[in-house]
Amino acid sequence: MENFEFSSPTKIIFGKGTEERIGKEVSLYNSKVLFLYGSGSIKRTGLYDRIVASLKAWRVDFVELSGVQPNPRLSLVEKGISICKKQGIGFILAVGGGSVIDSAKAIGAGACYDGAVWDFFPAAKLVTECLPIGVVLTIPAAGSEASQFAVITREHTQEKLPMQGEALRPRFAILNPELTFTLPPYQTACGCVDIMGHVIERYFTTVPNVDLTDRLCEAVLRTVITNAPIVLTEPQNYAARAEIMWAGTLAHNDLLSTGRIGDWSSHRIEHELSAIYDITHAAGLAVIYPAWMKYSFKKDTKRFVQFAVRVWGVDLPFESEERIVLEGIRRMESFFKDLGLAVRLTELDISSERFDEMAEKCAAFWSSGGNYHKLEKQVVKDILELAL
Amino acid sequence: MENFEFSSPTKIIFGKGTEERIGKEVSLYNSKVLFLYGSGSIKRTGLYDRIVASLKAWRVDFVELSGVQPNPRLSLVEKGISICKKQGIGFILAVGGGSVIDSAKAIGAGACYDGAVWDFFPAAKLVTECLPIGVVLTIPAAGSEASQFAVITREHTQEKLPMQGEALRPRFAILNPELTFTLPPYQTACGCVDIMGHVIERYFTTVPNVDLTDRLCEAVLRTVITNAPIVLTEPQNYAARAEIMWAGTLAHNDLLSTGRIGDWSSHRIEHELSAIYDITHAAGLAVIYPAWMKYSFKKDTKRFVQFAVRVWGVDLPFESEERIVLEGIRRMESFFKDLGLAVRLTELDISSERFDEMAEKCAAFWSSGGNYHKLEKQVVKDILELAL
Repeated sequence: MENFEFSSPTKIIFGKGTEERIGKEVSLYNSKVLFLYGSGSIKRTGLYDRIVASLKAWRVDFVELSGVQPNPRLSLVEKGISICKKQGIGFILAVGGGSVIDSAKAIGAGACYDGAVWDFFPAAKLVTECLPIGVVLTIPAAGSEASQFAVITREHTQEKLPMQGEALRPRFAILNPELTFTLPPYQTACGCVDIMGHVIERYFTTVPNVDLTDRLCEAVLRTVITNAPIVLTEPQNYAARAEIMWAGTLAHNDLLSTGRIGDWSSHRIEHELSAIYDITHAAGLAVIYPAWMKYSFKKDTKRFVQFAVRVWGVDLPFESEERIVLEGIRRMESFFKDLGLAVRLTELDISSERFDEMAEKCAAFWSSGGNYHKLEKQVVKDILELAL
Repeated sequence: MENFEFSSPTKIIFGKGTEERIGKEVSLYNSKVLFLYGSGSIKRTGLYDRIVASLKAWRVDFVELSGVQPNPRLSLVEKGISICKKQGIGFILAVGGGSVIDSAKAIGAGACYDGAVWDFFPAAKLVTECLPIGVVLTIPAAGSEASQFAVITREHTQEKLPMQGEALRPRFAILNPELTFTLPPYQTACGCVDIMGHVIERYFTTVPNVDLTDRLCEAVLRTVITNAPIVLTEPQNYAARAEIMWAGTLAHNDLLSTGRIGDWSSHRIEHELSAIYDITHAAGLAVIYPAWMKYSFKKDTKRFVQFAVRVWGVDLPFESEERIVLEGIRRMESFFKDLGLAVRLTELDISSERFDEMAEKCAAFWSSGGNYHKLEKQVVKDILELAL
């Protein structure tokens, strides 16, 4: 186990009807608020009206900014920063999924910074100051509601990059599983894969003696594997929606990173895909993971065997480790397919045409690589080839 | 799953050599400090000298108070409160195990309160104010380093009671597994059982649909079951000591309570035992759990089956649930015995002589009971009888 520091200060307010508390929680910060949301689905479901009523009841003064898109754009972030600076905003309320929360983080960091907010991204400059953020989560997936990360896309260069810093962790997050009942099946499935991705990246570490966090990772993965098919067939099953929602937060608040060094190669490769093709992050991950695993497992066979046995219940004779690993990967692919996701690039109508460009961008930015390989251009290309 | 609120703000600083940072961490609070510790084992190991050197290097002004005993006493807490009030102490540094940390919490709460600190205990009055506390942990067991609880014994009435409040959570906790290399085998074993106890109490809930937290509980229990025999045979095994130490914190910071209602009957009954006989808390728990389980399992057989199968690996035919449960309990007893602990009161030279008195005190204070029974006098007596 590696030395580590960890705290998870975001106050989680979880359960039925908890969004009714939003006015009170925001009013504790006693500031002028930017109310940020996405495409307007919160208006169709009535959530918008309930939030506005609660904010008004607590006399919270707010400015609205909507239109956050999936793979959230730098242009909207810049618009938000300008509003915050001009209007003296002191708190950001993000209502939505990861794209809205990530945008709120970038806006909050930019509002406390004199230069251009994109400075934080390519230079991986740690964020030390950010406006306080509160969240009402509607999509369990990105784990941004309690994480110290955000990912933003700069449209004109097709760059999708992360920013990081303890200052980015939201002050509170309201998680009501009922708010996820209306999520369409595809978004539900993508959310589950996104959650699994956060765990898988942390699971594949080369740090030895990480028994407890291995088991915690496996617990979260098995919970998602058990409950994902239920939420797809019974979208209003509160119990299963609750399991997925809480799993999504714990997958990415860094509890599962304690003492470990994660891999994140697949995330990096996927970001190149979704930056160019604007596919859902998780749709890209479902394609990249099997390819990355096939490419990587010989570097750390025992860990991939453990993954197959403990997470996917593979029960083959231990004499052939490779068969166990490949059966684990096959079960994972089969699980993704059952959720309705593609597991090959060709199914997404993505050919090898721009592999060179993606591999080059990925290698240029992430040459330090993951745990098993440097992300050199050829490595990225080989993994993309396996994903075809 | 029940609605819940959760945050875990204590900054955990984990790993080799981390106690060297104590002066710097304390100096962030910039206050006059009470340095609290136990019997002086920290002087024998050299930890005391390293801490004093670090505090002095950072020009931290401190007053010492030592002599905290296991089953920590109210009298010393009152002495600490008096020092804090007279000398304008603004921060408490607790170096030791649960007894020292619990004493620090009671001192910190009492120093911010005009009345007698014992007021918080029998009335279960929520603590809302406490001096900030920092911890250097030397015994992984009580989980007090990141919890909102403390347990104190009032000597002259032989009452051992808990206090609670978010304000009691330490600001930071330094966890260096190397500091546990010198723990004697008996204390090591008791620590492991204490940790398991915190998980077991949370595990036995009657709240349905708690899949994720069930699995997280099982992950922590299996980690302790795997690593406890290693730390006993190889006391300087850093990896295994680290697993136990991190498990001890996660067992009691309330992550494993999210959405659940714990039982805590066995803790309450054990507190009567250790208040009278001054035995180690975990030594009492190792005796009470098997008895409590035998007394209770028919109220929720499926959950006890899950415990036997997933935690203890019982692999009997599912047609006889009772056999599975009893085999799980037998394995738990056998595990405790292998750690060198007694599993019957008679082995501790405790007879039925004072059962009436203990049962009466327990019932008077905790009549609301646990999940499966009210803690009426006869129930407590019946469980104690099964523990003979």
